This record gives sequence, C-alpha cells and structure tokens, in this order.
Amino acid sequence: MSDLLESALNPRSVAVIGASENIHKIGGRPIHYMRKHGFAGRIYPINPAREEVQGLRSYASLAALPEVPDLALVIVGGEKAVAAVDDCAARGVKSAVVIASGFGEAGEEGREVQRAMTARARAAGMRLYGPNTQGLANFGTGAIAGFSTMFLEVPPADGPIGVVSQSGGMSAMAYGLLRGRGLGVRHVHATGNEADVGVSELAWAVAHDPAVKLLLLYLENIAHPELLARTAAYARERDLPIVAVKAGRSESGQRAASSHTGSLANEDRAVDAFFHRHGIWRVRDPHAQALAAEAYLKGWRPEGRRLVVVSNSGASCVMGADASEAFGLPLAPLSAETRREVAARLPGFATATNPIDVTAALLSDSGLFGGVLPVLARDPAADLFFVNIPVAGAGYDVQAFAADTAAFEAASGKPVVVAAWQDSVAAPFRARGIPTFANETEALGVLAQLASHTALMRERHVPWPQDAAPVLPPGEGRFLNEAQSLALLAAQGVPVVAHRLCRSADEARDAWGAVGGPAVVKACSADVPHKSEHGLVALGVDSAQAAGALFETQWRRLAELGAAREGVIVAAMRKGRHECMVGARHDPVFGPVVVVGDGGKYVEALQDVAVLLPPFAAADVKAALKTLRIAPLLEGVRGEPPLDVDALADIAVAVGRLLAAAPGRIASIDVNPVMVGARGEGALVVDALVERSVELKS
Amino acid sequence: MSDLLESALNPRSVAVIGASENIHKIGGRPIHYMRKHGFAGRIYPINPAREEVQGLRSYASLAALPEVPDLALVIVGGEKAVAAVDDCAARGVKSAVVIASGFGEAGEEGREVQRAMTARARAAGMRLYGPNTQGLANFGTGAIAGFSTMFLEVPPADGPIGVVSQSGGMSAMAYGLLRGRGLGVRHVHATGNEADVGVSELAWAVAHDPAVKLLLLYLENIAHPELLARTAAYARERDLPIVAVKAGRSESGQRAASSHTGSLANEDRAVDAFFHRHGIWRVRDPHAQALAAEAYLKGWRPEGRRLVVVSNSGASCVMGADASEAFGLPLAPLSAETRREVAARLPGFATATNPIDVTAALLSDSGLFGGVLPVLARDPAADLFFVNIPVAGAGYDVQAFAADTAAFEAASGKPVVVAAWQDSVAAPFRARGIPTFANETEALGVLAQLASHTALMRERHVPWPQDAAPVLPPGEGRFLNEAQSLALLAAQGVPVVAHRLCRSADEARDAWGAVGGPAVVKACSADVPHKSEHGLVALGVDSAQAAGALFETQWRRLAELGAAREGVIVAAMRKGRHECMVGARHDPVFGPVVVVGDGGKYVEALQDVAVLLPPFAAADVKAALKTLRIAPLLEGVRGEPPLDVDALADIAVAVGRLLAAAPGRIASIDVNPVMVGARGEGALVVDALVERSVELKS
Repeated sequence: MSDLLESALNPRSVAVIGASENIHKIGGRPIHYMRKHGFAGRIYPINPAREEVQGLRSYASLAALPEVPDLALVIVGGEKAVAAVDDCAARGVKSAVVIASGFGEAGEEGREVQRAMTARARAAGMRLYGPNTQGLANFGTGAIAGFSTMFLEVPPADGPIGVVSQSGGMSAMAYGLLRGRGLGVRHVHATGNEADVGVSELAWAVAHDPAVKLLLLYLENIAHPELLARTAAYARERDLPIVAVKAGRSESGQRAASSHTGSLANEDRAVDAFFHRHGIWRVRDPHAQALAAEAYLKGWRPEGRRLVVVSNSGASCVMGADASEAFGLPLAPLSAETRREVAARLPGFATATNPIDVTAALLSDSGLFGGVLPVLARDPAADLFFVNIPVAGAGYDVQAFAADTAAFEAASGKPVVVAAWQDSVAAPFRARGIPTFANETEALGVLAQLASHTALMRERHVPWPQDAAPVLPPGEGRFLNEAQSLALLAAQGVPVVAHRLCRSADEARDAWGAVGGPAVVKACSADVPHKSEHGLVALGVDSAQAAGALFETQWRRLAELGAAREGVIVAAMRKGRHECMVGARHDPVFGPVVVVGDGGKYVEALQDVAVLLPPFAAADVKAALKTLRIAPLLEGVRGEPPLDVDALADIAVAVGRLLAAAPGRIASIDVNPVMVGARGEGALVVDALVERSVELKS
Repeated sequence: MSDLLESALNPRSVAVIGASENIHKIGGRPIHYMRKHGFAGRIYPINPAREEVQGLRSYASLAALPEVPDLALVIVGGEKAVAAVDDCAARGVKSAVVIASGFGEAGEEGREVQRAMTARARAAGMRLYGPNTQGLANFGTGAIAGFSTMFLEVPPADGPIGVVSQSGGMSAMAYGLLRGRGLGVRHVHATGNEADVGVSELAWAVAHDPAVKLLLLYLENIAHPELLARTAAYARERDLPIVAVKAGRSESGQRAASSHTGSLANEDRAVDAFFHRHGIWRVRDPHAQALAAEAYLKGWRPEGRRLVVVSNSGASCVMGADASEAFGLPLAPLSAETRREVAARLPGFATATNPIDVTAALLSDSGLFGGVLPVLARDPAADLFFVNIPVAGAGYDVQAFAADTAAFEAASGKPVVVAAWQDSVAAPFRARGIPTFANETEALGVLAQLASHTALMRERHVPWPQDAAPVLPPGEGRFLNEAQSLALLAAQGVPVVAHRLCRSADEARDAWGAVGGPAVVKACSADVPHKSEHGLVALGVDSAQAAGALFETQWRRLAELGAAREGVIVAAMRKGRHECMVGARHDPVFGPVVVVGDGGKYVEALQDVAVLLPPFAAADVKAALKTLRIAPLLEGVRGEPPLDVDALADIAVAVGRLLAAAPGRIASIDVNPVMVGARGEGALVVDALVERSVELKS
C-alpha cells in the first residue's frame, strides 16, 4: 500500500475540522467513533469556538496543532471546506476527507470548484477523498474518518470483510447487512464524488490488508479500469474474491448516477465483460453481497457444480430440483451403493435418490439426517450439498440436525448450505457456522455463484504478443472502403472472400470469371459504408455480362451520390451454414471491446452476441459462443453438422488483436457477415468495415 | 359451495379416529387446535383404549358415536386407515381426511389400494381428502382437521387469506410466512395425494368464502384444469386475485413430484399459458406469495405502470431507476409544475426529477418527505410510488416519514410501497399499513406484479363459436399428407400457397406452368411426414422439364422407401419477409394448445415461440408476438416495413379453432413455415402437417 493511502486508512493522527461536542452531529460522530473503537493515534478537534470537544483539547486551527496530522477530516461546508482543503494542502497534511456536498454532483459551477480544489491538493502532494462522501472507517485500527449513523445502529466488530463504495448509503447498508448476519467488517469506505481517490485505488489498498478475505465494491462508474484490473489481478493471486455492485445498468439509472455523484456512463455489457475478464463477480445490490458473504468466508472453492438436495419436505425436493436446473447445478447422480445405504436408513416411503426426501418422519426420528449425511459424504459424485428444512419446530430436534450437518461439513470439507425460514430452525445451524438462507432460491443462488466465481477466478489469460501496428491506407475519411478493410483483415491472416476491385466494366467481366460465378457485385467507396441501403449490392450475378452491366450502373450511382468512386468489387458469392459477426471497437473507458455472435442484418435487433475484453484466446471465444441463443445451431441441430466455431473464434481473436495493435488508429472494425461452414470447412469474411480513430483524422 | 365441501370446511361435528391425549402427537394436535381456536361444533375422539381424551369423552368406534359426524379425521395408518375409511363410508360420514402415507406416492401397490379405497368412498357418496396429507384448517370456524406443527410455532389469526396446497409443508410454510408478516389467514388446506378432492375443487370452495380476499395455491400438477379455470373465472368475477406456485417446472422437478405425491407431469409452458389465460399469477415459491400478499389486500388495482421513486440515498435512486427498467415500470414524467414545486421544497443539491433524491439532508430536515409527497400526489402522471430508505436510524424522524407516507396513500389512493431493510425503519411504516420490503427488487417486483396481474384479471376472452367439426379425409395413417393438410387449412379460410398434387410427370410439367415458376417440387405421402430428411424437396425448380424430371425421381424414391405414393406436389415458390410458424396440439391435460413464433427449420433449437390457450383473439396473438425475441423484426427494423402480424394472428386463430373443433379427430397441426409479408401483403402457409388423433386410428 502506498504511503499516502496508508495515511488515510492507518493514520497516526487525525484532525477534525469542524469538530462538535454533540455526538449526533456530523462533526461529533467521528471523534466519538474513534475513541469508542480503540483508535490508538492522536485526535485533534478543530473548533475555534471551544476549549474542549468531547473531553479532548480543541484547537483554533490547523496551524495551532502540535504536529501536522496524517489525515484531516473536513466537516465544514461550502467555501470553508475549500479553504480548509487548501490549508491542509499548504501544511503538508497527507490525506483530506471532504464530507461537504454541493460540488461535482451539483452542476457545472460545483464541478469547476471541485476540479480546481483537487488540482491544488494534488500539486501539494495531498490525496483527497470525496467531496460529497460519508468518509472512511477502519475498524482494524479504529481510524474512523466518517460519520455514518449506521455505526450507532449496528455495533461494529472487526472482521475479514472490506467494503469500498462510491455511495456512503450503500457502504452503510452493506455494513449493516453484514453485521446483521453476524459477520465482522473491517473496512467501510465511501469515495463520493471521487475528485481524486476512487473506488479502484482504495480497493487496491484494502486488498493489501492481509486480514481481508472478501472485498465488496459498489460503483456507479468505472473511471479507471486499469487500476481496478490491477487490484483484481492481485486479489486473484491471493485468493481474495471481489464481489461488486455496478449500478447504472440502465439508461435512466445512468442519468440518476450522473446527478448523484457526477458519474459518467459505462456501457453495461462492457462492464459485464470487464468484470468477467478480471474475475470479479457482479451482483445486483448490497443485499446480494451480504447474502453470499459467509459462504465465501468459509473458504469454500468448489471444484464442480454437482448438487445433492436433502429435505424433510417432498415439495421442497421438487422446488429444489427446479432451482438446481434453473441455476445450472445438476443433481449429482449418486452411486448405487450410496442409494442403497441411504434407503436402508430411511423409512420405506422416503426417497433415496437425489433429491433425498427424508419425509416428515424426521419428526419422529431425529437421527435421519445424521444417518444419511455421512453416507453422502463418502460419495465422490457430489460437489455441493443443500439441506432444506421448510417446516420444523416443537418436536423436531433441530439442534441434532445442526450438529449432524456441521459434523458432515467438517468431515467432507465440501460446501453445505441450509434453507430454513424459521429463525428458530436457522439459528442452531448459524451458531455452528453453516451458511443459512430463507429459501432454495437464495441458497442455490449462492452455491451457483460460488462455483461460477471460483472457476472464473481460476481462469488464466495469456497476454497477446505485441503485434506490429497495422499500416492503414492513406486517407482522411472516417471509414476505409470495403476493399481496404478486407485487405487489412487478410493481412492479419483472416480468411476473406475471393474478390477483385474493378475500375471498369471490362475488369468486372474478367473478375466474374476469375472469382467463379455466381458473384456479388458491390460498389466500393469509403463515403458509402452502408452500401445496401443505397441499392449498391447485387447478389447472385450469374454472368460476366451482367457483372459488366452492374459495374456501369453502380459506377453511375456513386457519381449521383457524390461519393468517391473507388471501384466496384466483384466477389465470389459464398454461403456458409450460418451468418455470424465479429465486431471490435475502442471503448473510451475499457479500450478494445470485441463482440461476437449471430450475424446478418438483424444483429442490432436480435442482440444475440457475447462481449469479450482482451487478451482472450480462441477457447474463451468458444466458451462465450456457448452462452448465445444460437448455441444449439453452432453445435449442429436436426442432423446438421456442428459448425466451425474454431475458425470463427480465430477470426474473433485476429480482429481483437488487430484493433488492440492499432490504438489511436482504428476506432472500430465491423465484420458482418462471417460465413461459418461446417466443422473443418472454415469461416469466411464476406464484408468488413474499418473505421479510423478520430485522432488520426484531425 | 357444495354441501359435501361444506362438511369438510365447516363441519358441525368431527370424529378423530386415532385420537391421542398427547398434543404433540398427530392424533392429539387436531383436538387441541379445535378447542383452542374456538371450534363450536362437536368433537368426538375415537380411541378404544381410553375413556377420555384431552378432557373429552373418548369413543371406542364410529358406531359408538351419538351421531354420524360430518367429518372424520383418519389418523391411524396402513390397513387400519383403509378400514376406517370404509367404516366412515358405510356409516354416511360426509368427508374423511386421511393423514396416513404409503399410498399412491409409494409405488404401484399403494396406488392400487388408494384407487380401490377411493372408489368405495365415492360409491358411498363420501368425499376423501388425502391420503398422505397434513389436513385441513379453517380458522374462521376453528374446524382444524390437520396436525401442522406450524400452528403451535406461529399463533393463528383469522384473516382474509386462503391457502390451498397439494403439499402440507408448503401450506404450513405459506401460513407461517404470512403470519410472520402480520397477516391473518383463514384457510390452510393441504390435499396430499388428491385421491378424490384436489386443489382445484377445494380452491373453488374457498373462493366462495366471502371473507377471503386473496387465494394462494401450491400445485405439483394440474389434474383438473377445467375446475381450476372455473374457480379462476369466479374469482375474477368477484375481484379475488389468485397467486399460484406450480412446482415441477423442470424435468428433474417433475420426477421429484412424482415420488412426492404421485403427480403426473404437466408441460411447463402450457402451465404458464393456462395461468395467463385464466388470470392466475404464477410465482416461484411461497416466499413470493407471502411477499406480495399485503399489497393485494390493500385492494390496489393500478390502472398503469408509471412509477415515481423517492429516496434519501442517491445510490438507491440509481438502483431504483435500474430496477424500474428491469421490471418494465417506466419512470413517470413529472410535469414542469410538479418538478418546480418539488425543487422548492428540497435543498439545492437534491434532485427534483424522478427519481427524486431528497438526499441525506433528510437527517436534518424531517419534513422533506411530508413536503414532497403531497405535491407528487397531485400529479396525474404517476400510477405507482416507491419510497426507498436504505439508511436511517438515530436522528431520523422515521415516525414522521411513516405518517407522511400513510397520509399520502390515504389522499392519493395510489399504491405506495417502501423499502427499508432496518427493522426499526420498516416497523413504523408497517404499523401504518404501508407494505414494506427489504430492497428495491422486492418492492418493485411486487408493484410490477400488481400492475400486470390487475391487467391480466381484466382481460376478457370471447368464446369461440361452435365450429362444425372438420371432415378428415379417410385413412388409417397417423398423418394426413401435405396436400390433405393444406386442403384442410384452406377450407378454414387459411391462405395456402398455390399448388397442385400431381400423379404423373406430365401433370407436374403442366402444374409448373400453372403455379408460375420457379416452383417447389416435393413428394406427397402420409408415410413421409418429414420430406426434406429424405431428399424429397426440391427448391427453385426453374422449368417445366425440371419439374417433370423431379417427379420421376421422387416417385421412384417413394417406392424405394416403401411409402404410399399419393402424389408429388408442385407449388409456387414463395418467400415472405420472415418465416414464422403456427402449431397446435391437443394436450392431454389442457386440451388445445396453440404455439406461434419464429419459424423455419430451427424452431426447436431457437424456441422463440409464445403459447396460447383458447379462446383467444387475433389481438391476443399479437400481444403474445410482442414478447418474442423476433418482435423487433415483426415491427420492422433497419428501414424494413412492419410485417403483417394481423395476417399471422388470423392464421393462429384459424388453426386453433380448427383443432378445437376436432376433439378426438386431430391430435396436432404443424404449420411451418408461414411466409409473412410486409403489412398489407398477408401471410401464406407453404407447408403443413396434420396428425390424426390416436382415438380415430384405432
């Protein structure tokens, strides 16, 4: 952790500018919290109107302090806040946390004040947190430079969880929900407007606290993906799961985010791809973060997804089976021996196959769980276990069930979770450290998340070689023409359709013979990137004569459109078994983003595509293709052969590498359609459009 | 309600066969419950070993009772249970509830015993509940012929909710969850194996209890859809919402259901269509039923879906906006006047557009909610309101927020729900009757459900006229040949492609000229329903000669296949703008089921279809088409015209009516592809396959 971040999370001394005697005021709470939660450093209240604050000597100003504090908490608002920050910067304070609102989130004027204040702080070498933030809290050291009321509502306890959030409200909510589940929380940090330090940088610092075993983030925008990627890589290295909420998924959500913390919009499917690429698990809200926390902290890292369901309710077995299918957790096929042994321990009307229904007989025979579980523990077919007790109470020996389940977990070392909505039933399991949920949806959702996230964290990505930057043809226009675009791809080894660029009807007639009819004849001009909308694509041209005639027509039409007449392409007419597409573009935040999926003219309407961030391998593309709705077609249906997804994947990698090798040169590459043949037949690009970066044009 | 059902739900006298002194035993609990919860009728414990049970006189047998009881509760098991049922039937008992397991759910032998016992009861005019059931409970009368331990765990309170469930566990769980939310529950009935009375019939009875304002069902199979449909129709008539769980969605879930209560499988998408058709809302589990209950009981029946979000957390506004989009609840566009008035009541850095962020300033100014809400109440743009308070506690005047919200609800009469995960924050709202949830997903999910369900309950379906049963061509085979199938459709007014059935090469050559080439030439034989798999379809036949030659080839091929040579079809080759499909089949449970959607050869692989149950109108088909992934294509994309969905919808209605008019004659109709043109161009059936009902074949 950098020294500067250290000064914020583990300060030796903290000044509170705008300190209050009243612990229910924002200026009073941090001092109260630090003293209550064992802060061992020095606290300097600054309040010129008082001699003493909460029993501590109060100072008139920063200048009056006996030392320069590591951290200053700026409680005062408006112009006073700006003056205080300037004063801190001038005196060598290392970190300042600015609580006041009314800056970047409040319009252009506030943005300007925020920008200037931040620039001055940076120039002086001081890090800034906020403004418009609830502040920082480290319960490991008691350094609490924040005012959340939640620390009064729910008593803190140090523990293995770090929360870093743009929103103070969401950091408090995550904290409260986690503590409500009995889990200890060390870090609760909010970054607000992120004028200087953002979630990504603070996450980097928290990830380096060896006591932290689970890192929860809340973001409204990802401003510095490279920092977050670095944090995620370090976290994977030390097996630290990161579970993130990224709000502003929708257009209206992004608008709301912009008026909340002045966030800029991220394209949501690129956010998904970014998290996926870096092994960060994305969930909807802090509730989902809290829900899965205990299962992560158990240290479970399941090797597979095969599930065993045990319940005392037949209906729960039915719904458990439904949920297992919904979450992609196949019911483990138990061995004949296991089933025999389970059957021997259950009444005759019970079900010994998975899901295992021990039935309401559990009421009269409390030993049923204890009898069945050890048998299951010995069967290697299962990776995950789910015990569902939707009904119990007086007469049921719940303590015994919980003890048996805990013994099972200790013996098998495999994940086992429980669903029990009655607190009296859940409590004994919780007391023995078994993660317990309200219903099968929650329980199996968490198991599925754990299995998927574990697999994701173990993915390794081989960096792409440093490719030579491609040379683009000279020109000023936004687009390369089709012939140039195809040539650029062909130079990367991408298979493109046989074609010729013709400048006369004679050349077109010759070309028809050369490419082998029937052919496609299409005008080629960088000024007309979308040819078919102008009637400039003719399919199924079945004679050289027709090709010549079409040349003339299209040549004239280009002139009518006032477009540069760069030629007419005569190309072999090739049909694959399916039209796919590959696209790549430079996202302003995430850099190269590659899209692969169902192609043809309805790409936008049908949206059956997967998004990948580099570096990715052909295997990653193939895994992504399996998530598409057209996946069954790619695998071969109705007696059709499987398609050549290897060839398609190779094209996606080549297109991605081409774009990545051309920063500042290529803005986007659109390859659609890619005609994909049967396995072994390859895939062929029949149309392409390369867009130059704006930088190159100017 | 029928007299027989009355005898079960409101018996004047109850015999308990196998009565126990111990209230923790199954034979003891019902007596204890009835006496505790005010049953005013007569209770007859039957236990030959005792003089008295729980202070009541105990009888040696049914014969010893002073009267024939309305209801007998059979607690004894195995052969004794069968004997008791027979005894009840013989003596004129009206209803028997059989608790014992080991019947239909336990294999063929048990099924046989259950069948015979039920037949004897029916012959005697006695209704049977169970076996393998937890029993019945009516807290309106205190008639509790069940043993659920849940009534000890969570104290009963009579109220406006009825629960009817196949599973005892799920009925107890729903009861417990509802009571945990402070809601009163009158009926808690479980039907177990449903040897005689099932959920549908019991639901009919409960729906007739005027005190019931919300009916919750749990089913593992729908055995008698016509009964359930009748209940649903009656319930809609009296504005009684029905919310159902139907477990066994998946294949493994259906297997589990079969070993739980011996249920037969229902096709899940037909179940969805059935519920939709009858205005029943389907949810995943009893948790979801309990979650929405209070909002239903408020009597809210929203006219629209436009949402206003108010929060004291900017992040919650962002996530609220995201969730509103996810749930299809568009943020209401507030009028300029509303925004002005809201802005005047909020601090400068707050947000006066929807979502409205009153900010953490709420902490210092408790009147913000009270100031803003009345302004919103006056704006007609909003149908639904959501208040999200993710952070509050000491210092916040939560009582005032709750009072202001309740006053707002009373004044506006519009649905308003709250999210607050802290119990201290939620409690004051709950106390004032405002439905309160843990987070925006739950809250907006319930509002969306309420809006959708209200609209669904108001749908009216005009019965189809009694069409004359179609006359099928004579024959024994499973399928009609293509020419016969097309003719059957054409007779219903369905537009089918111009075609001729040819019996010679000459006829084929003539036909080519008549239909106008290029043509399709395809063999026609009821023995070869899937022609293309046998190379018996030739497309783009561009001369009469070619048509003649293809006739010869296909005629020979039919002979090689040993198939009846019924002809060769020469049809016009027609391309629409999109290939759709219409299918219809007689489901063994639901009767006619119609499927409409994306067509072509990948129907099964892509599964982009909607399912409808009759009677439906063209408007219903068009509404269903809007839910498909190809909906944007049907509406026209990339400058293409919208497609003729009216024509497609008319075909779907015609196909549905054809099937419905032919019960026992047509098993299925498969119309694929339907070539759909641009709006005004119509739609054309180019291939069809009609399957005879098995009954007709034998």
